[in-house]
Amino acid sequence: MDSTLAEWLRARLEEPSPGPAYRRLAHLLQQAILSGQLASGAKLPSSRALGADLDIGRNTVTRVYEQLHAEGYVLAETGSGTYVADTSPARMPQAAQRAERRPLRDHLRLSPRGRRTIELAGVGKRQWGAFMPGVPDVTEFPLKAWMRLQNRVWRSVRPELMTYAQGGGYRPLRRAVADYLRLARAANCQPDQVIVTTGIHQSLDLAMRMLCDVGDEVWIEEPCYWGIRNLLLSSGLKTVPIPVDGEGMAPTAKHLARPPRLIICTPSHQYPLGMVMSLARRRMLLEYARQHDCWIVEDDYDSEFRYGIRPLASLQGLDQHGQVIYVSSFSKLLFPAMRVGYMVVPAALADLFAQGIAELYREGHTLLQAILAEFIDEGYLGTHIRRMRSLYAERREVLLAAVRARYGERFPVLGGESGLHLALALPHLGDDLPVALKAQELGILTRALSGYYNTARAVQRGLLLGYASVPSERIGPAFDTLAQAIDAFDPRARRR
Amino acid sequence: MDSTLAEWLRARLEEPSPGPAYRRLAHLLQQAILSGQLASGAKLPSSRALGADLDIGRNTVTRVYEQLHAEGYVLAETGSGTYVADTSPARMPQAAQRAERRPLRDHLRLSPRGRRTIELAGVGKRQWGAFMPGVPDVTEFPLKAWMRLQNRVWRSVRPELMTYAQGGGYRPLRRAVADYLRLARAANCQPDQVIVTTGIHQSLDLAMRMLCDVGDEVWIEEPCYWGIRNLLLSSGLKTVPIPVDGEGMAPTAKHLARPPRLIICTPSHQYPLGMVMSLARRRMLLEYARQHDCWIVEDDYDSEFRYGIRPLASLQGLDQHGQVIYVSSFSKLLFPAMRVGYMVVPAALADLFAQGIAELYREGHTLLQAILAEFIDEGYLGTHIRRMRSLYAERREVLLAAVRARYGERFPVLGGESGLHLALALPHLGDDLPVALKAQELGILTRALSGYYNTARAVQRGLLLGYASVPSERIGPAFDTLAQAIDAFDPRARRR
Repeated sequence: MDSTLAEWLRARLEEPSPGPAYRRLAHLLQQAILSGQLASGAKLPSSRALGADLDIGRNTVTRVYEQLHAEGYVLAETGSGTYVADTSPARMPQAAQRAERRPLRDHLRLSPRGRRTIELAGVGKRQWGAFMPGVPDVTEFPLKAWMRLQNRVWRSVRPELMTYAQGGGYRPLRRAVADYLRLARAANCQPDQVIVTTGIHQSLDLAMRMLCDVGDEVWIEEPCYWGIRNLLLSSGLKTVPIPVDGEGMAPTAKHLARPPRLIICTPSHQYPLGMVMSLARRRMLLEYARQHDCWIVEDDYDSEFRYGIRPLASLQGLDQHGQVIYVSSFSKLLFPAMRVGYMVVPAALADLFAQGIAELYREGHTLLQAILAEFIDEGYLGTHIRRMRSLYAERREVLLAAVRARYGERFPVLGGESGLHLALALPHLGDDLPVALKAQELGILTRALSGYYNTARAVQRGLLLGYASVPSERIGPAFDTLAQAIDAFDPRARRR
Repeated sequence: MDSTLAEWLRARLEEPSPGPAYRRLAHLLQQAILSGQLASGAKLPSSRALGADLDIGRNTVTRVYEQLHAEGYVLAETGSGTYVADTSPARMPQAAQRAERRPLRDHLRLSPRGRRTIELAGVGKRQWGAFMPGVPDVTEFPLKAWMRLQNRVWRSVRPELMTYAQGGGYRPLRRAVADYLRLARAANCQPDQVIVTTGIHQSLDLAMRMLCDVGDEVWIEEPCYWGIRNLLLSSGLKTVPIPVDGEGMAPTAKHLARPPRLIICTPSHQYPLGMVMSLARRRMLLEYARQHDCWIVEDDYDSEFRYGIRPLASLQGLDQHGQVIYVSSFSKLLFPAMRVGYMVVPAALADLFAQGIAELYREGHTLLQAILAEFIDEGYLGTHIRRMRSLYAERREVLLAAVRARYGERFPVLGGESGLHLALALPHLGDDLPVALKAQELGILTRALSGYYNTARAVQRGLLLGYASVPSERIGPAFDTLAQAIDAFDPRARRR
């Protein structure tokens, strides 16, 4: 055995391969033991003998043996030698032995909810380019100012900013966000009520975990942001799609008869259709939630960008009974990969949510939060929003002009008064997905409007076009390319 | 009405208050409408008249009216005037009216799982100081090198690093982690198999959502890291605590007769007791998982820090059938608030997990990932680990010496061969929690060992002491302070 082993090892050690001899020898011996080539109880050659056979220093072999011993591959008996340990799973208790060998069924071995997550997947491979909806112009971000603040924060860092976080977020950022929301969104909040998250998904996830149980019903808008369906279903909640009308989410008497645990809505700018929830509807929802102990989640994802009039006040600011959870993020104000969002929770829940987020996610990114707090305090956020608002307003005009120039009034434009996108309705189309796929082939990113619906009834067809990240001079040519895809499928498009 | 309204408004506008007249007037009118002081249908004075009465420019009043109109508070009829809109919830459909007014029950209005999350909460308010377990010495982090790389990455940033991420993490970081794990942990992985997360919590959460369903059983070690209990329960999974012995997780025949969906274990360094899982046990678990289609999650949280011998190879590297999910993070190698972790999934699941993480969390922090990739590629990670290993080894010696100097061999020390902490067993103590609380009063952070157990049976008592973040010269004095708390409760401690 000794000489066979040495020969086998030598042949393999001579093969060109990266890494030091020590690591390679250890690896080869492990493989030989695991595969059974070196059987349980076999005695290994002495380190001196093996070293000589392999032309390797004795100390190297000794270190390898020590390592194998520490890992349990071999037993060392003082004065007697080194033996292969018995580690074969044959020692496993009886109950474990019964099952047959079964082939793995890769994809199928995801759980049902894992499979559904993949089936409902909506995130595209490309996240930058005309007319990707929901993406701001990240090239306009004030990099230099940010880097200056970043260096300042890092230079004076304290250990408290680098260790585990306490829950709720970095205090000065919570204060800065509360100040901002009171002014810009007429929100009614103290810094304690602000919980810093990594974005809307984490905010919703925390709300669901703290306020809902498996099986609870949640109202969502129909249509709605595709991302929350997966999140809700994956958490074991039941979604109840509520149609929207010109005043926003419009539950019918049948819906109202069965109060949900949570109501998720986008009052400032319905996603994706763009209407604003009327004051009457807001008051109705608040009163309904009060009577039935529901929670309302207000998703206020891009309300800062309104063209013509100031942003509307938030639903949270109207809430007198502490039932609204306000969620938003800096993804569309600054840049998406920053992953800083926040929620404003009723005062009675503030400490509980701060504790809950620490437990469930162990948050951090505290230095990033510190830089962002200074960025807001020094006025860069306000300046950037104002700059972007006029830039996006211009791009919106250019896109609207391109639509009108090509199609006149044939296709209604929805929700263009605010936000980063508009919806081009294509009501005569049987299916809008082929148009989006064709556009993608031509290099233009859009989303088919039908993809935002949860049920097959009353689906609007069209395309969501994000204009915010597209330079004005690129919009016309990009729309002409997109129009080829529309013309290929829509019978009305070709009627000039 | 007109003059009363003007008077009421004038009185309030005269009160000293921040913000421009425009915003204050809008706010006052909104309040008057919401409270019913201005009833539905009431006609507002003309902007000219109200402006004159309040000594405010007419244009300001016009803007306020436009804003109120946009928000739905008033109706504007051309040529006729401005009227308060009917937005009272009395218009709500019948079904919603039935419920009685019920008082809110703040805390109680958390869902049952939300309440349990708070009840099981383990995150402390202080996260820095002697002897906080699991915290590395963040003050030793190579700040200057990091800032240099950070500025380099930010200066050459591309839009793709700032927009939404695609799923799985920044490619060069996935490659750097795969290279690192193959060398340092004998892992068997390609870059595609590495999924970058925000830490162990997110890694576990993703594994649970992709591989388990509500009601599935999960084996956890008894005792185990307190943080995962909450996470598992909050996801609707059932935890089955499996006792550990000297070789690690030790399922009995009864356990083996009922295969779980997932097995979570800490083979390199059992948390919190510190034993290493034997090779025989590793092979048994792998074989059992293969036979019963279970998944194994290997939590490898601090295996880099072993004193005396190289880190042991990972369980993942032994896996021949693609059933091990390896999870770890940079929290203990670099600093916790960085929030970069990773998982290595079997090749068959790589794309599915990359898609799943994008769907469920919309990850990002891409610039941070880019900086970290360069940090690893330029060798800073390796250098830092080596420096910290010798620093922590020294601190561990100092703490062991302090224990021995004070208590001789009276209290066993567990798991001190590796990691960032050791467990000081206090076997004669009825309850270890009062000791930890007393220590906290004295300014020393520890965790009671009993807090890591899920059932009341066979609980070890003692304290978890983290030494990694405590400068050597602070360890002796801090331990003397801690000893006051031990002496106050443990009858054996005082027997000198």
